[in-house]
Amino acid sequence: MPAWSGILERYSAVRRLTERLCEPLEVEDHVAQPMDDVSPPRWHLGHVTWFFETFVLTPHVPDYAPYHPHYSFLFNSYYNLVGERTDRPRRGTLTRPTVREVLQYRTEIDRRVQELVSDCDDAMLAKLGPVLEIGVNHEQQHQELLLADIKNILFQAPLYPGYLPGAELTVGQSAPASGYSGFEGGLTGFGHAGDGFAYDNEGPRHEQKLPPFRLANGLVTNAEFLEFINDGGYARPELWLSDGWDIVQRLGWQAPLYWLRRDSTWISHTLYGLREVDGGEPVVHVSYYEADAFARWAGRRLPTEFEWEHASVMTDAMSRKSTLLEDRRLHPTMGGHGGDGPRRMIGEVWEWTGSAYLPYPGFRAPKGAIGEYNGKFMVNQMVLRGGSVATPGDSIRPTYRNFWHPDKRWQFAGVRLAEDA
Amino acid sequence: MPAWSGILERYSAVRRLTERLCEPLEVEDHVAQPMDDVSPPRWHLGHVTWFFETFVLTPHVPDYAPYHPHYSFLFNSYYNLVGERTDRPRRGTLTRPTVREVLQYRTEIDRRVQELVSDCDDAMLAKLGPVLEIGVNHEQQHQELLLADIKNILFQAPLYPGYLPGAELTVGQSAPASGYSGFEGGLTGFGHAGDGFAYDNEGPRHEQKLPPFRLANGLVTNAEFLEFINDGGYARPELWLSDGWDIVQRLGWQAPLYWLRRDSTWISHTLYGLREVDGGEPVVHVSYYEADAFARWAGRRLPTEFEWEHASVMTDAMSRKSTLLEDRRLHPTMGGHGGDGPRRMIGEVWEWTGSAYLPYPGFRAPKGAIGEYNGKFMVNQMVLRGGSVATPGDSIRPTYRNFWHPDKRWQFAGVRLAEDA
Amino acid sequence: MPAWSGILERYSAVRRLTERLCEPLEVEDHVAQPMDDVSPPRWHLGHVTWFFETFVLTPHVPDYAPYHPHYSFLFNSYYNLVGERTDRPRRGTLTRPTVREVLQYRTEIDRRVQELVSDCDDAMLAKLGPVLEIGVNHEQQHQELLLADIKNILFQAPLYPGYLPGAELTVGQSAPASGYSGFEGGLTGFGHAGDGFAYDNEGPRHEQKLPPFRLANGLVTNAEFLEFINDGGYARPELWLSDGWDIVQRLGWQAPLYWLRRDSTWISHTLYGLREVDGGEPVVHVSYYEADAFARWAGRRLPTEFEWEHASVMTDAMSRKSTLLEDRRLHPTMGGHGGDGPRRMIGEVWEWTGSAYLPYPGFRAPKGAIGEYNGKFMVNQMVLRGGSVATPGDSIRPTYRNFWHPDKRWQFAGVRLAEDA
Amino acid sequence: MPAWSGILERYSAVRRLTERLCEPLEVEDHVAQPMDDVSPPRWHLGHVTWFFETFVLTPHVPDYAPYHPHYSFLFNSYYNLVGERTDRPRRGTLTRPTVREVLQYRTEIDRRVQELVSDCDDAMLAKLGPVLEIGVNHEQQHQELLLADIKNILFQAPLYPGYLPGAELTVGQSAPASGYSGFEGGLTGFGHAGDGFAYDNEGPRHEQKLPPFRLANGLVTNAEFLEFINDGGYARPELWLSDGWDIVQRLGWQAPLYWLRRDSTWISHTLYGLREVDGGEPVVHVSYYEADAFARWAGRRLPTEFEWEHASVMTDAMSRKSTLLEDRRLHPTMGGHGGDGPRRMIGEVWEWTGSAYLPYPGFRAPKGAIGEYNGKFMVNQMVLRGGSVATPGDSIRPTYRNFWHPDKRWQFAGVRLAEDA
Repeated sequence: MPAWSGILERYSAVRRLTERLCEPLEVEDHVAQPMDDVSPPRWHLGHVTWFFETFVLTPHVPDYAPYHPHYSFLFNSYYNLVGERTDRPRRGTLTRPTVREVLQYRTEIDRRVQELVSDCDDAMLAKLGPVLEIGVNHEQQHQELLLADIKNILFQAPLYPGYLPGAELTVGQSAPASGYSGFEGGLTGFGHAGDGFAYDNEGPRHEQKLPPFRLANGLVTNAEFLEFINDGGYARPELWLSDGWDIVQRLGWQAPLYWLRRDSTWISHTLYGLREVDGGEPVVHVSYYEADAFARWAGRRLPTEFEWEHASVMTDAMSRKSTLLEDRRLHPTMGGHGGDGPRRMIGEVWEWTGSAYLPYPGFRAPKGAIGEYNGKFMVNQMVLRGGSVATPGDSIRPTYRNFWHPDKRWQFAGVRLAEDA
Repeated sequence: MPAWSGILERYSAVRRLTERLCEPLEVEDHVAQPMDDVSPPRWHLGHVTWFFETFVLTPHVPDYAPYHPHYSFLFNSYYNLVGERTDRPRRGTLTRPTVREVLQYRTEIDRRVQELVSDCDDAMLAKLGPVLEIGVNHEQQHQELLLADIKNILFQAPLYPGYLPGAELTVGQSAPASGYSGFEGGLTGFGHAGDGFAYDNEGPRHEQKLPPFRLANGLVTNAEFLEFINDGGYARPELWLSDGWDIVQRLGWQAPLYWLRRDSTWISHTLYGLREVDGGEPVVHVSYYEADAFARWAGRRLPTEFEWEHASVMTDAMSRKSTLLEDRRLHPTMGGHGGDGPRRMIGEVWEWTGSAYLPYPGFRAPKGAIGEYNGKFMVNQMVLRGGSVATPGDSIRPTYRNFWHPDKRWQFAGVRLAEDA
Repeated sequence: MPAWSGILERYSAVRRLTERLCEPLEVEDHVAQPMDDVSPPRWHLGHVTWFFETFVLTPHVPDYAPYHPHYSFLFNSYYNLVGERTDRPRRGTLTRPTVREVLQYRTEIDRRVQELVSDCDDAMLAKLGPVLEIGVNHEQQHQELLLADIKNILFQAPLYPGYLPGAELTVGQSAPASGYSGFEGGLTGFGHAGDGFAYDNEGPRHEQKLPPFRLANGLVTNAEFLEFINDGGYARPELWLSDGWDIVQRLGWQAPLYWLRRDSTWISHTLYGLREVDGGEPVVHVSYYEADAFARWAGRRLPTEFEWEHASVMTDAMSRKSTLLEDRRLHPTMGGHGGDGPRRMIGEVWEWTGSAYLPYPGFRAPKGAIGEYNGKFMVNQMVLRGGSVATPGDSIRPTYRNFWHPDKRWQFAGVRLAEDA
Repeated sequence: MPAWSGILERYSAVRRLTERLCEPLEVEDHVAQPMDDVSPPRWHLGHVTWFFETFVLTPHVPDYAPYHPHYSFLFNSYYNLVGERTDRPRRGTLTRPTVREVLQYRTEIDRRVQELVSDCDDAMLAKLGPVLEIGVNHEQQHQELLLADIKNILFQAPLYPGYLPGAELTVGQSAPASGYSGFEGGLTGFGHAGDGFAYDNEGPRHEQKLPPFRLANGLVTNAEFLEFINDGGYARPELWLSDGWDIVQRLGWQAPLYWLRRDSTWISHTLYGLREVDGGEPVVHVSYYEADAFARWAGRRLPTEFEWEHASVMTDAMSRKSTLLEDRRLHPTMGGHGGDGPRRMIGEVWEWTGSAYLPYPGFRAPKGAIGEYNGKFMVNQMVLRGGSVATPGDSIRPTYRNFWHPDKRWQFAGVRLAEDA
């Protein structure tokens, strides 16, 4: 079954990467949950493993006995069809199983998955392949979450330790990209089609009519965002969506997440520890509300997800991957560089679009628990496109639809502007 | 200025209707705010009047002195640019000004508006006309809110008084519409264009490509919704959007708002008091989450706002208005009737669509405080189309975009299904 | 039955006074509940009436049919043994029965109570008398609550209407009392004994050993409390009990309730509308936490309830009643006046003591629902002694134990200091 | 200075015991905070050390440089006068300093304290001695908290691991004590006097008049408490204080904390893992509300703290210490045994009294930050007397006043009944 011939290698590589991401952590860092959105790393390590146990081993290994009678309860996330689960906000109150025990769980499940897959015939492989493929992609999504969560866990006043304290951040020296590129639009195809893996929410491929538009070549920089702040951006209700303004007032937002004012300068907490905010770098850790308010202040708007996809395809910008998770440059530093057209559409920050996360025409969620995967989130969230420094490079595509509630800021999300032609 | 020649008559008629809507109330009913979404009728009466004082009188009457120094604070709603305002959830804690004083405020503002408009020249009328037009439409929106809020205020255990206790509800006798009508779709124009009044959010008119689809001829009935309930609809997570399921569990929803179980039958609170739930009537007071879950259970989906608009235009269904607010049949009873094509697309319930409330391509909010009107709500809300028994008949159009957060149920909102062709 | 011969006259007088207290209100004022502690006046009017219906009429009128099937649910307060009741924080969401209907309810219950009592024989009167006596005292307690609640209801920014707008407040001109009086203490009797009415919590009479102490002749004045404020009293944690400091920070307290800063002066909301804070008047609307912090700042302490009772008995200070509720001087103005010994121990403000509200030795709650009256509150509350401008004069005694949670401020409560001899 | 000659030995012994208490824990167990009342063991380890650094080293070592610039912020608890501190409910979100780093902190502070004390002259020792004594007693209080918090941290569904998994619980075999002992009372002295250490709140010694009373010889057992449960104790409002009943309903209490219903039997989470509830053992982990409701149900009452102290002195019951913390029998098993008089008044459970935690007559808090120690908690809390299996044996006295808010259940608290003679 050639289609799945490399699946075990890919499985192993992804599983190892997850563990490597946790290696710089102290045991203590695996336990905390500073806010409801964050999961303790211990939980991530167990949850992605539970996925393989539940959807690969349990249905396909004859008389499979669960590794532990309670792990399903502890490591299920939102799969309502697979039974009860720990309340999300209570994940940080659990201290057992320990990190060591979770790593043993990983080892054993890996052993059994490899055994199952190595020994199976083509018919079985044709069944297992797609589930493994989803599981691997699922784990890659959690790798990005893991980094965002680790960053939040380490954001503890007054210590603000770095994740990679000894590491040096390589900073790109080229000037930020400027200007806009025009696109003619027209009746255009969108969404995924073809052989490679894609999530259900990327299809069906379909046509939309796109009016002509212009897309910024570079990402919004910290320097530009500081202008917005200094112009009273966080204090002017006319710049904000109503729901966003409520949150600005309720939570007292005055800058992106992780920015701290020290005397007259802004510094920010990064995975490299505290650093002065660098005006040439792309702004990151902003919510949709902030992205939208900034765009309104700038007299522009956010692109739709279709404009974004169209531009990325037309310019082949997505192919210029270079600095994703695998490279371990864990802070966005380059908003673009010389040359024509939109730049850095991948590898720096996820880019908020003005599109609500909704099904494409003809979308049907697959049956069963894996079908809970994407469709059930199709309300109240906005689409982000691209991919960040924390995104595994081989998990991403021009049609990939990331999505978050508009108030979330702990992900590596930034802003690219657009305007009507 | 012929365009505005009838504006004063229309102004007067709408203003009178608002007051008539409050006449059946006790003074006490004007004060309460049983939940944050509801405003006390006293507040509605004042707020729509404040709108005319602020946007018509203040800028255009020389040396205009406010009617009362504090009414702007008390009756502003969300117009951040026009100054401070009472916190929305605190509206029900205020008891002054009294109903009598608010009615005096209305009378005086009406007198001054009429004086201003009667005496003005064409140039001034050309300025005043559009603001009056918005003000009148704004007040019509509040007429519908008023009825929804009154219904909620009267929903007080254990009394459940009716709004029109002596009145008889005329119930249509024809059988519910059944079946679906097909539409071919294609590249089609949407949104408002032309002379009549429309809100900014109804334009610009633009083209979208619409795949072929089928739309239900009738609204979902109480009988059908009861099947969903009896089939465990409120207890099966796989039928629900994730955010919806959270709310179902947190609030313990088991039926539409206003439904009460008495022994083995369902009754519901209406503006005519408690009535047994009539299976032939359209279901009403459901959230988007419930509409969406019902559709999934039925193997169908909600229409997009574009499918809905296209169908209503193609079938001229919107022109068959008959029983809106002016007729005072204040409960939806007819989900459709004989004949071909979708029926009762107006005058029963607002119909949830699967479209998020977002700007149309090229949309720009007008400058200034009136520009806060619609654009600032373009996130986290879903579009409803149609018009309900509580909607003023001359305030509605096929392009009208109503919108609510997906958890709201106190509006007269129901369900029409669609499916891919 | 001579003991009860005047009970009907007293019943009628108290019932009429309650209604007179509501006469200055607008209908609207009867509906609102600006905070959980406050009950709408409509509710008070009904609740005290429900007490007579439930404990007088229902058990003693043969085949008594309830006045209204739902009033028990609506007007029960905390009598758990008498069935379900409206959630306290939801009282302000109800608009029916209307004020007019509640007044009709009062009239009818009064008629039936009078009929029952007029016609009954001595044996029945001996049964009814004690219940009527409790009911009358209960209604007098609600009269004071009513005034405190009305004051809070009228405290609505930005209007702050007065309760008696036309009325003039007569202000005493004598200088505040100063100095302390010494008491030798010793083994002393406390609590109620004898014939007159007293609540169960005032007994049994018992002995306590009282060390010698000194009690302030006057109440703490606004001028003194301003010194505390100006000395940073609300910003110095070492002056506060830990639970109090938490609340100061959480609620941002900076002055007594109803004080408002306008430029450089303090004004306060009173039942006579906004007035400048008068330094010579006793401070009022402070919590136990504030009373205690003030005392600590002043190098003094609060008296125990036994010190207070002892001093009031020794000086006969309680007999000098003059300006209670019946006199309608509805704002404390005199903290004391010339002469020796503690002054104004009644008729201005309730005085916080340092005693927790606990049972006296040998206390037993009476059986049955009326037994829920006082004993069930004997935890987490502090005793206040005295009586305020809002206290009915004939409802009060030196042994009367009022009690509130230590964070409550909307009652007419103030401070008298003490110190060890 | 003979008085302090053994202080260093005592210091060392107590410090070592704290560390031994944490030895059975996993690193992960040191981080979690399952509810606001609980502190992570890491925090306890650091906080008690910070106490010595702040009150012993900083003022007495010339030019003392803090061990770490941020530890004061991280390990301060409620000492408002000593600067800012981490919000209590956020303690569980911190992961650094690690356990290893906190243990290093302990080692270094211990070294410097020993150096300071070993080298000092008598004058200095006279200054250091009392502070060390308080610090040692403070750490002993935290040893008991530590065990209560560890028990709560391990109470994590569905695993419920034991703290000492291999250990066997030695269960006493003698029958529970029964019956009551009478005491004549009279004018009696209370509180601490003399040379040994006592907290400020245990004095001044003073006289109170005590009516005759009877005190139960034994603690309330699980079997007795089960009768209360089976008699509907948690569903009968007339048995409860009003504030208690609110909590029973809000939190859904149906049994003591840590009791779990499995089919028809009750089991409970202990430091030895899950065990079946043993009817002969004393009930533990009940709130004041439950203790008080049980007493009312039983037709008895709780003793006052004075009755309790008097009885313990008269019977010398406190001297029969045997099984406190040092013995590591970490679960109460014996409610009393043969012989006359009250038994086991120490070493099983803290015993709720009916006394509010208030200052004794003449109490004055000492000046300065250590003066924040006890006085600031003198409101809203009830006194407990005795000492539990988790109390260090040499930290306890008949005059010791423990105190908790009446809703707290995670401490080792139980019930002894009393009645009027």
